[in-house]
Amino acid sequence: MTDLSQMSRDELVRRRDELSAQYDAYRARGLKLDMTRGKPGSDQLDLAKDMAVCLGPSDIKSADGTDIRNYGGLDGLPETKSLFGEILGAKPEQVIVSGNSSLQLMHDTVVRALLHGVPGGEGPWGKESIKFLCPSPGYDRHFAICEHHGIDMIVVALNDDGPDMDAIERLVENDASIKGIWCVPKYSNPTGTTYSEAAVARLAKMKTAAPDFRIFWDNAYVVHDLYDTTDALANILEACESAGNANRPYLFGSTSKVSWAGAGIAAMATSLANAKDLKRHLGIQTIGPDKVNQLRHMRFFKDLAGVKAHMAKHATLIRPKFEAVIEAFDSKLSGKGIASFTRPRGGYFVSLDTLDGCASEVVKRADAAGVKLTAAGATFPYGRDPRDRNIRIAPTLPPLEQVKLAMEVVCCCVELVSIERRLSV
Amino acid sequence: MTDLSQMSRDELVRRRDELSAQYDAYRARGLKLDMTRGKPGSDQLDLAKDMAVCLGPSDIKSADGTDIRNYGGLDGLPETKSLFGEILGAKPEQVIVSGNSSLQLMHDTVVRALLHGVPGGEGPWGKESIKFLCPSPGYDRHFAICEHHGIDMIVVALNDDGPDMDAIERLVENDASIKGIWCVPKYSNPTGTTYSEAAVARLAKMKTAAPDFRIFWDNAYVVHDLYDTTDALANILEACESAGNANRPYLFGSTSKVSWAGAGIAAMATSLANAKDLKRHLGIQTIGPDKVNQLRHMRFFKDLAGVKAHMAKHATLIRPKFEAVIEAFDSKLSGKGIASFTRPRGGYFVSLDTLDGCASEVVKRADAAGVKLTAAGATFPYGRDPRDRNIRIAPTLPPLEQVKLAMEVVCCCVELVSIERRLSV
Repeated sequence: MTDLSQMSRDELVRRRDELSAQYDAYRARGLKLDMTRGKPGSDQLDLAKDMAVCLGPSDIKSADGTDIRNYGGLDGLPETKSLFGEILGAKPEQVIVSGNSSLQLMHDTVVRALLHGVPGGEGPWGKESIKFLCPSPGYDRHFAICEHHGIDMIVVALNDDGPDMDAIERLVENDASIKGIWCVPKYSNPTGTTYSEAAVARLAKMKTAAPDFRIFWDNAYVVHDLYDTTDALANILEACESAGNANRPYLFGSTSKVSWAGAGIAAMATSLANAKDLKRHLGIQTIGPDKVNQLRHMRFFKDLAGVKAHMAKHATLIRPKFEAVIEAFDSKLSGKGIASFTRPRGGYFVSLDTLDGCASEVVKRADAAGVKLTAAGATFPYGRDPRDRNIRIAPTLPPLEQVKLAMEVVCCCVELVSIERRLSV
Repeated sequence: MTDLSQMSRDELVRRRDELSAQYDAYRARGLKLDMTRGKPGSDQLDLAKDMAVCLGPSDIKSADGTDIRNYGGLDGLPETKSLFGEILGAKPEQVIVSGNSSLQLMHDTVVRALLHGVPGGEGPWGKESIKFLCPSPGYDRHFAICEHHGIDMIVVALNDDGPDMDAIERLVENDASIKGIWCVPKYSNPTGTTYSEAAVARLAKMKTAAPDFRIFWDNAYVVHDLYDTTDALANILEACESAGNANRPYLFGSTSKVSWAGAGIAAMATSLANAKDLKRHLGIQTIGPDKVNQLRHMRFFKDLAGVKAHMAKHATLIRPKFEAVIEAFDSKLSGKGIASFTRPRGGYFVSLDTLDGCASEVVKRADAAGVKLTAAGATFPYGRDPRDRNIRIAPTLPPLEQVKLAMEVVCCCVELVSIERRLSV
């Protein structure tokens, strides 16, 4: 491998021509590969095949004797509250188990705050102009909630050990209009970063000008380990409670990438005061969640050990895809000074950073060669990556051979665009 | 039967003493009967026992080839959209099929309007002080949505053929802050009223000062007939379209009281412009509904004929309970000038009107004798029945014998309280 910056203009031209020929060859193949979707493959969905039949026709009572088919049970069955308590690190009474979408829980929590405020606050957030901190690259659907509802977003860097806490502490201490922060604390989307214990502690302790500042802790990948040795994540609920900021965090999780992506169960956990407040709103919105699907999940997984055993099966299926991505990047991009990338130990994405100003062009070229990548910029608020360098790779959905082929094309595009950029200056 | 007003003071005193003795005897029995909940009985839920197993482990594709287990399908499966189109009287493309709760669809539609407004409007409803019309007696959870979100409620009478259209037309024509009306147009909760064709036409045509006035058409009991000859309801979508007010109605329905109360599927139907607007919001809130439960319902019911055949089974179970209520009222209350009541041909409730000022006391007495009734006033906005006379009877949940016994107690209480009232003046 030669660093591009060490190559002469002639060498660069020669390499560009080689890559152009390769690229044209890929184009000629009429590929149709999609690396955009953070969705499980159908082989992963098949792992939960027994979900369809594990809840018999007479299996209609929850642990507390509730007929799961009827109305009621606003915050979920006792057994699902316990299970999610274990998953998220909360007491059952801090947990609300809901429908199939944790995104909806997050969205609705924001909407309730806009219309009604939150405990310890000074009224509806929507009455003033407010802001959220957005560690980036991050999850586009978090940012979309803010954009849709007119909440200003402030980008803060997501470093290897979590978000840039120096910047965050400075911002929240001085600006009372900053009401929240989006966090994917474990195997972050898209970088795979897990927040360090220090970062969690600082988030819990930091002084905020807003008395009703909230952490939206989207622990989407809490049990989504690719390896036996897993990233440890400190307990944000306990950290906030110890720091005297018990009402600060809202935790979210789901079985979407555990059982079935569209038909799982979602939950949140928070302080008792927050939970009480949420249930007051929830009781106006609905009579209760689908308890049949909750009990179905309990019958299938039984307990946390069952969930973990099931996740190990997922890992067996998707680890080779992640490793194929990393391997391609290692062999085709490393040492050339044109890209950096993450080596996640869990979650659903690999994050690739090109040279500044190259990501959009790489995505465009790959697309023209039949490889769909997540739009450049999607991992930043308003879809604007200030350095135009981040590309999110989603390896789970396509079969392994397609992942390998797609990565060949992507690597070709990255190097080609990088050289063109260098030649044009 | 003698009308109370024809009875002498002595006769009244004698009858009161008889009833007091009866009442004390009921009290002594330590009854525990609950007539408050508009919930199906477990025998009704059992009708859908096969739901648990009707969707096999390999039955994973919808009509358009979608893997129902994965993410996506924001507005529902094509086949469920078609089915709800038939149920609600809409084209499939006007339908959005969602999770388990039509109440949530209504609530979220109101919330979206508060935060963002609706097509044809002048911005978010929440920016000004707005009002909803509430035909009453009506459904307490509709009123709770308004109260929770600070929407003022105006009571209009619900007559035998629908809401008081003269009053409604006058109100909406002159007050631009009136943005909506709650309607349960068929077998209304709690009176069992079905809106006449004329009422539907007037709702569709009436001139509203608000350009973005909306009808919240909660067709909760659209297929919930108790008898073979059913109440006919005009198509509000078509009526509004013909009248040039296509965007006026939002229709809601669900299978909550068809399959399983807590684990059914809910849907709404509206104009294409409204549907497009709703999907724009919905796509921020969620990735998609539980499509597995949607396909499960399709496998179980197959089509509208299947739904209707299933509803006939429900009717067989609950019709005797309704008839027991009516029979008790007929034999114990009729002709005494102390009560009037409805004879619903569908839905979930019987509505009882006592003499003015007696409902709260009747509910209190019944409760003391071990018969829980829906709180007096619950069927009116803010829980305030201006004449304190309406009591909602929910006969479906308790076994028939309990319904009969509870009605004996209720009738005793109504007559007793009526006589006491008369004696006290």
